[in-house]
Amino acid sequence: MGGTSTADWVRAFRSYLNEMDHYREAVALMEWDLRTGAPRKGVALRSEAIGTLSDEVFRRQTGPQMAEFLDRLEEPSTWAELDPVTQAVVVECRREFERNRRIPAERKRAFVTLTAEAETVWAEAKEQSEFALFAPYLERIVQLEREFAGYWGDSGRRPYDTLLDLYEPGLTTDVVDALFAPLREETVRLLGEIVSSGIRPDVSPLCQTFDIERQRALNARLLRHIGYDFEAGRMDPTVHPFQTTINRYDARITTMFVEDDLRASVFSTIHEGGHALYEQGIHPDLTGTPLATGTSMGMHESQSRFFENMIGRSQAFWVPLYADLQRAFPQLKGLALDAFHAAVNCVEPSLIRIDADEVTYNLHIMLRYELEKALIEGELEVADLPGIWREKMESYLGISPPDDAHGVLQDVHWSGGLFGYFPSYALGNLYAAQLRHALLRDVPSAMDEVASGNLAPVLGWMREHVHQYGKLRTPREILRQATGEDLNGQYLVDYFWEKFTPIYHL
Amino acid sequence: MGGTSTADWVRAFRSYLNEMDHYREAVALMEWDLRTGAPRKGVALRSEAIGTLSDEVFRRQTGPQMAEFLDRLEEPSTWAELDPVTQAVVVECRREFERNRRIPAERKRAFVTLTAEAETVWAEAKEQSEFALFAPYLERIVQLEREFAGYWGDSGRRPYDTLLDLYEPGLTTDVVDALFAPLREETVRLLGEIVSSGIRPDVSPLCQTFDIERQRALNARLLRHIGYDFEAGRMDPTVHPFQTTINRYDARITTMFVEDDLRASVFSTIHEGGHALYEQGIHPDLTGTPLATGTSMGMHESQSRFFENMIGRSQAFWVPLYADLQRAFPQLKGLALDAFHAAVNCVEPSLIRIDADEVTYNLHIMLRYELEKALIEGELEVADLPGIWREKMESYLGISPPDDAHGVLQDVHWSGGLFGYFPSYALGNLYAAQLRHALLRDVPSAMDEVASGNLAPVLGWMREHVHQYGKLRTPREILRQATGEDLNGQYLVDYFWEKFTPIYHL
Repeated sequence: MGGTSTADWVRAFRSYLNEMDHYREAVALMEWDLRTGAPRKGVALRSEAIGTLSDEVFRRQTGPQMAEFLDRLEEPSTWAELDPVTQAVVVECRREFERNRRIPAERKRAFVTLTAEAETVWAEAKEQSEFALFAPYLERIVQLEREFAGYWGDSGRRPYDTLLDLYEPGLTTDVVDALFAPLREETVRLLGEIVSSGIRPDVSPLCQTFDIERQRALNARLLRHIGYDFEAGRMDPTVHPFQTTINRYDARITTMFVEDDLRASVFSTIHEGGHALYEQGIHPDLTGTPLATGTSMGMHESQSRFFENMIGRSQAFWVPLYADLQRAFPQLKGLALDAFHAAVNCVEPSLIRIDADEVTYNLHIMLRYELEKALIEGELEVADLPGIWREKMESYLGISPPDDAHGVLQDVHWSGGLFGYFPSYALGNLYAAQLRHALLRDVPSAMDEVASGNLAPVLGWMREHVHQYGKLRTPREILRQATGEDLNGQYLVDYFWEKFTPIYHL
Repeated sequence: MGGTSTADWVRAFRSYLNEMDHYREAVALMEWDLRTGAPRKGVALRSEAIGTLSDEVFRRQTGPQMAEFLDRLEEPSTWAELDPVTQAVVVECRREFERNRRIPAERKRAFVTLTAEAETVWAEAKEQSEFALFAPYLERIVQLEREFAGYWGDSGRRPYDTLLDLYEPGLTTDVVDALFAPLREETVRLLGEIVSSGIRPDVSPLCQTFDIERQRALNARLLRHIGYDFEAGRMDPTVHPFQTTINRYDARITTMFVEDDLRASVFSTIHEGGHALYEQGIHPDLTGTPLATGTSMGMHESQSRFFENMIGRSQAFWVPLYADLQRAFPQLKGLALDAFHAAVNCVEPSLIRIDADEVTYNLHIMLRYELEKALIEGELEVADLPGIWREKMESYLGISPPDDAHGVLQDVHWSGGLFGYFPSYALGNLYAAQLRHALLRDVPSAMDEVASGNLAPVLGWMREHVHQYGKLRTPREILRQATGEDLNGQYLVDYFWEKFTPIYHL
């Protein structure tokens, strides 16, 4: 393509990316299918097929053709002619390219093999509640993560910062520390007041028997209510709920139905629905590019958390729905709306992160953040993890796990090498609260609209300020443009006090 | 790979085929998903993705790497060292390779474009019952089919024989003519006796309201009853039932639920289940090769037809199931088993092939066969089709369509260029009857076992004589080895008389 014009190069590049996206779509669908009902005996061959197609995506991300495109499009004279979307696409592709190319192939294979094995061992160790089984694998994973951070990082950068940047571009330990310290202090203080209030909402009405088919109908309705487009997605049952984007017009969610706990499906549906709303709201111009997804893990989580907790667990949300809910489930007849609202907002220290309430959740994250940061920075030995886990649980939440299965072995993340990922969850809550504050500043009637069944102002604001940009803007740019400032942890604390004061008569 | 051994070449070839199969799996799943619930707005992007991955499968089937493998493995000294499975794989790959390579790329593109457009125009023409809309497209398709037959065929071979061979390797017009002539005569005679018997089974009890959820449970049970392995497949609802093989251990079926006709789901499930049993029965050694599917369209249809009509519509089949069926659907309480059996075997001339009963079905096929053969051989003009269609319907079935939608426009096949495909359907019935005869010769108690709820002898015989071979043997080899003779149409005629004589007191 020696004498071809910039426009030709851009066209060829976009077409190359489109094809790459078709492979990615195939992989996403094959994984979705594995988790939603592919037959057991076909799993081994399916896993091989996923391997083959993922390798092809990887080859396209890192191969000589990508290198040629990037080199050519980054030439200053060419670059100047590029439209902003293509520029951002080039930046994103270069980022992926470098990230993948800097790891020697042999080390990457070692990582894939190790983590595949480690996940199996972790499951067994958790089953037997025996940390010692998993410890040698975790040690090797930590070593590899440190090694990888070395390949990726600039000199002088803390290795853990390099890992953080994988999930939240631009985030550093300094920033996290500065956010988490006051959040922990305020959370522990709030939790103390809640516990000593003596009030404990009665959750038992939500733990009666709820017909699964009716739950399914309710959840479909809730999704539609928040603005989820069923013509561009679908909902299926799974054990572990997730959201996956098959293509730009196919953002699927799964949910989890528990017959004796209505909360399980309702809030996992709204949570995954929040992720899906983000994906469904991305500007069509980004279709077929690596920019057509959420800007970061944290920002993605902000949308799921915002819709789950700040909308789905608000009293306003249920005002227009509650009579219908009681009709569908007559066992709720005697439960007043404010008691329902209190029940779905019951705060209580607990051992398992994924079951934690909105307030204590961040304490679980901080604990993991501190431990994994210390592991990566060489300040903590794997062998000491279970003990420190118990100490920190005692100090932050006032409870301590009876065994490792309910402690250090509860999460799958470390076995897959996902160091630097946990902070995204808390970041999601922080982003969500700050975005909520800006939304109420711009649209003071937003929650009144929610209370009258109209979620369009809320979704419209998120679409305009967050969703449409996909990865075209960084999380920081989105946040600053939407809220006028950088991440500020005070909004989450304020929201907590505002929300829980009436429930617990603080 | 200059100095490498035959074993190395075979290993590399098998690994190449395995990867090709992974792409095929992705395409199959993406198509399955499109037809079972992919959201509407994602369809356009999905179709592009299917295009990209199908192109990749095609490139691997016809590219220089395949050419090198085939040339190398076909060298006499190498060939002699190959195991029989690899030899058959090479033959099959060569067949596909030549078939694809002989069509100039430009003509292939013309075909893809034309048929894509023609399918849309056909749907519109059928909607408006206006053959003239579709006629110009059909003319061009016939031209292209003749042209393609020229590329594929040997000199002196009739063009229609070349097309027949695509779907039923080795089949020729002479054979079909010799089979169809007596079959038509006997069928018309039998139909005459049935019509003049004055007996018409009452089908109305099967056209009451049948709860869809209960139908779903019934159909899952029927599948299990015939031996379908749900751990290597799944069942989903669709408008047009089909069977698709995702991988060697994942043979899925779909079925069609009609609330006011129990027959729709029951017999489409058993029909597609028959296809799936074939796929589930293929020898594991063929996994990941192009031999891991049915040997031909006709043989595949023999399995679906055998299970649908010769098992599923036998009285023996329902003996152990009928009491449960009546319990699940109390509206059948007053319907005796023999009346149920007669109702699901009601024979009646009708206009639409896919709704036709077992006896008249083949007449619909013969009509299409005669017309499409004459079109390809240049003995019939497209413009004359509707008239000849009516004449032949009148002559074979004694009825005539009121319009083209119920006549010449009813099938999608020709719009997609599937000339030579229709005979497979009748061939399936002929194979099925001949296989049934051999089964009862080898296992005289087979239907008694069916009547006591044990389908293992029937399935076991089909597994042993048909399923396991996949494409490792030709249809003719399978038939000769299983039954001791070449295709003999008398078995189907005998079966018809044996079955329908008691029902219609002939």
